[in-house]
Amino acid sequence: MDTIHVGLIGLGTVGSGVYTLLRRHKSELEFQVGHTIQIDKILVSSLNKARVIDGEEVSSKLLTTNFDDILGNALIQIVIEVMGGETLAKEYIEKLLQAGKTVITANKDVLAKYGVELNALAVKNQCDLFYEASVGGGIPIIRSLVEGLASDKIMRIMGIVNGTTNYILTKMSNEDMDYSVALKLAQDLGFAEPDPTGDVEGLDAARKMVILSSLGFSMPITLEDVYTHGISQVSIVDIQFAKTLGYVIKLIGFSQILDGEVEVSVQPTFLPKEHPLASVNNENNAVYLCGEAVGQTMFFGPGAGSLPTATSIVSDLITSIKRLQLGIRGSHLVSFKHERRIKSENKIMAKFYLRLTVEDKVGVLNQITSIFAKEELSFESVVQKPTKNPDDAQLIIITHEVVLSNYLRALRQLKQLDHIKHIDSSYRVVSNG
Amino acid sequence: MDTIHVGLIGLGTVGSGVYTLLRRHKSELEFQVGHTIQIDKILVSSLNKARVIDGEEVSSKLLTTNFDDILGNALIQIVIEVMGGETLAKEYIEKLLQAGKTVITANKDVLAKYGVELNALAVKNQCDLFYEASVGGGIPIIRSLVEGLASDKIMRIMGIVNGTTNYILTKMSNEDMDYSVALKLAQDLGFAEPDPTGDVEGLDAARKMVILSSLGFSMPITLEDVYTHGISQVSIVDIQFAKTLGYVIKLIGFSQILDGEVEVSVQPTFLPKEHPLASVNNENNAVYLCGEAVGQTMFFGPGAGSLPTATSIVSDLITSIKRLQLGIRGSHLVSFKHERRIKSENKIMAKFYLRLTVEDKVGVLNQITSIFAKEELSFESVVQKPTKNPDDAQLIIITHEVVLSNYLRALRQLKQLDHIKHIDSSYRVVSNG
Repeated sequence: MDTIHVGLIGLGTVGSGVYTLLRRHKSELEFQVGHTIQIDKILVSSLNKARVIDGEEVSSKLLTTNFDDILGNALIQIVIEVMGGETLAKEYIEKLLQAGKTVITANKDVLAKYGVELNALAVKNQCDLFYEASVGGGIPIIRSLVEGLASDKIMRIMGIVNGTTNYILTKMSNEDMDYSVALKLAQDLGFAEPDPTGDVEGLDAARKMVILSSLGFSMPITLEDVYTHGISQVSIVDIQFAKTLGYVIKLIGFSQILDGEVEVSVQPTFLPKEHPLASVNNENNAVYLCGEAVGQTMFFGPGAGSLPTATSIVSDLITSIKRLQLGIRGSHLVSFKHERRIKSENKIMAKFYLRLTVEDKVGVLNQITSIFAKEELSFESVVQKPTKNPDDAQLIIITHEVVLSNYLRALRQLKQLDHIKHIDSSYRVVSNG
Repeated sequence: MDTIHVGLIGLGTVGSGVYTLLRRHKSELEFQVGHTIQIDKILVSSLNKARVIDGEEVSSKLLTTNFDDILGNALIQIVIEVMGGETLAKEYIEKLLQAGKTVITANKDVLAKYGVELNALAVKNQCDLFYEASVGGGIPIIRSLVEGLASDKIMRIMGIVNGTTNYILTKMSNEDMDYSVALKLAQDLGFAEPDPTGDVEGLDAARKMVILSSLGFSMPITLEDVYTHGISQVSIVDIQFAKTLGYVIKLIGFSQILDGEVEVSVQPTFLPKEHPLASVNNENNAVYLCGEAVGQTMFFGPGAGSLPTATSIVSDLITSIKRLQLGIRGSHLVSFKHERRIKSENKIMAKFYLRLTVEDKVGVLNQITSIFAKEELSFESVVQKPTKNPDDAQLIIITHEVVLSNYLRALRQLKQLDHIKHIDSSYRVVSNG
C-alpha cells in the first residue's frame, strides 16, 4: 500500500484532534482511500514542550519550527493548516498552493478575507483548497451548500455559527444568568477564550457568514458587507420580555438575496420559539437554509471542539486524496456567478423590538408615535410596563416589517426627545422562516 | 456551449419536479457545469395524456413509451429514473448501467434490495449510480454520510424518514386526532397514498434505513435485517401517556453498531421531548447521526415533494456531469468494509413501555413481577390507572434497559396469565442520544 504524505501546521486543539483521528480511524481511512496516510511533519511554535496526544508522546522527529520543512518536502502533497490567525497563516497557505500542494484549512479568518484569491490560486496551481471545518465545526455544511443543494437557488441563510455566544445566551435564557456570569462560566469550561471579544462581538460569526453567503449566493461577499453586532449588551430583561412574547434571543447570522441584492448581518435576534433554530442550545451550531425549490432545511451539530472539527478536516483529506488519485486536482473552482451587490439600508425590510425608558407623562407616547408615523413605521404592538422608578415607564414596541433606514432615522430622533430617558435596546425580529 | 443529453424515466410528481427545476434554474445550472442540459427523451406510460408542467405543455416530441428510445440513444449519457416501483425499474437501471450510462435514481425500493449489485455494475461499466433522493427527499444526507462524515465512525443512526407517518403522528399528538382521522386527512392533503400500507406499516422507512445503515456502517444490510413495525396500531391513549411521561411517539428508524454487530429497526418509539428528533413535525424528515468523533449531528428538511426531491436529483446530475467532464466515471465505488453481522435478540439491549389491561385483583401485579424477575427484567416505573370498567385496571410499565429476547419471552408469558385481559401496547423507549 502506497503512502500519502501529509504536513500538519499547528498542533493545538484542532491539530491534536486531527492527529488523534488519523491514528484512531487508521484502518477505516486506509480502506477508504486505499493508501496509508502518514503525517510527515508538524509545524509547531516551540520544540521545548512535551506533546502528549491521545495518551502517547508525539515523536520529536515529526516536529519542526521551520515551515520550509513542509514547504520544501516534495513527498508532502497535502497540508493541513490549523494554526489559526491571519497574516502568517495566509502567507503559508499561499506559498503551499503556489508550490502545488493541496491545502485543507479550518481558518475562517483567512477564508473570509482571502477566500476568492486563494481559491483561484489553487486552481491556477492545479491543487485543491478545502475548508469544511471553517464553518460549523463538525457539520458538513459547506459540502451541503456547494454540492448537495447545488441545483437550487438559496434564498436565505440563517445560522447559529458561534458556539460561545450560543452557550452564553442559552445560560442567560434557561437559568436567568447575567451576561457576565454566563461569560465567566463559558470561560471556565473552555467554551470562551480569555479574551472573548472576537466571539461575543460577533466577528467570528460574521466571518462564517461571509463564507456561507458567498457560496450560497454565488457572490463575493466581504466582511465589510456584514452588519455586525455582538451579544455583550444583551440584557436579561430583554430575554425575559422575549420569552413573554413567545421568542428566544439568539445571535443569528442572517443573509438573504432579494432582487439580486444581498443583505448580511450578525446580530442578537428575536426568533419565534417554534423556529427550528430556536431550540439549538448550548455550544451547538446550526445552519438553516431556505432554497427556492427545496424549501427549508437545517443542519445541526457541534460547532467546535477538537474531534468534531477534525472530522471535517479529515473528511476533506479523504476527498483530497481521492482527487489526487484521480488526477483531477485544481478542477474544483469555486467561482461566482454574480457580481457583488449589497442591499442598501433603504431597501432592507425588517421587523424590530424596541425597549425604551420614558418619563411617565401625558403626551410622551404621542411624541413617539408621531416620529414613527413620519418615518412610515407601523407598530405590531406597544406595551407599557412600570419600572422601579414610579416617575418612569418602560415601553416595549414591536414594529411591523419596516424600512431599515427609516427605523434607524426614527431611533436617532427618539434619542433627541427630552422625555425619553434611554433607548434600552433594539433588536431585529425574524418572524418568518 | 456543448449540450449534455439527459433521459428521464417517469413524469409523475418527482419527474415533473426535475423537468421544472431544469427549466427554472437553467442559467445557474449552465454556469455550474459549463454546458447546456437538455432532456432528450422522457419515458411515460401513456402518450394519450396532455402533460402541462409549470404552466407549459411538454412537447410531444420528447415523450415516448419505448424504453429503447432512451437506452439506444447514444447521445444520452445520463438517465434519471423516477418511475418508481421495483421490478421494471430495476431492469431498466441494469440495462442502462450495462450500456455505460450514468443513472440517477430516487428509487429506494430498488436501492434497498439491489444497491450492492447495481453499484458494482456501475463501476464495472465505468459509469455512475447516484441516489441522494432515495432517502430524505431534499436533505443531502447520503452525501453527508458518505463524504462529509467519511472520516468518522458512525455509531448510531436515527431517522424520521417517512413523512406520511410523521404527519399522522404529529396530528394525533398535537390535535388529539385518532389514527384513522389523521390518515384520512393525510390522504386528502396528498401526504398519504390511497393505499397507505407501505408507509404506515413502516416498509418505506425500513428501505431507507437499509440504505443509510449500509452506507453508515459500511456493511451490506438487507431489508430482512430490519425489525419493522408500523404505526397503524398506535393509540391516542399511548400518545397521551407518552406526553405525561415527557415523551413523544415517533416512527423512528433506529440502527446502531456495537462490537461490530448491527441492529436495525423501524418502530413507533418513545423519544424524550428534548431529543432533537422530537420536534421534527408534520411531513418533515430528519436524520440524526452519532459519530465517534463528531458526536451528534442532525439533518432536517422536506422528506418528499416534487421540487425538494428534484433538488437532490438535479444536484446528483450536476455531480454526474462534472464527473463525466473530468473523465472519472465509475470510480465512485461504494464497497463495504465489513461483512454483514446482525445482532441477535439476546444481545440487543433496549428499554420498553408496556401497557396492560388487567383484572383489578390482589396478586395480579405479583404474577407480573415474578415473570419479569425470572426474565431478569427490571422496572423503571409501574403506574396503575383506573379504567372505565371498575373491575379492571391499566398498568403502565417502563423498564430499564433489558435484553430484548428476555422481554419478548416475558410478553409471551404475560399473554398466558388469566388475569391479564390484554396487552394493549408495547413500544421501545430511547432515552439517550
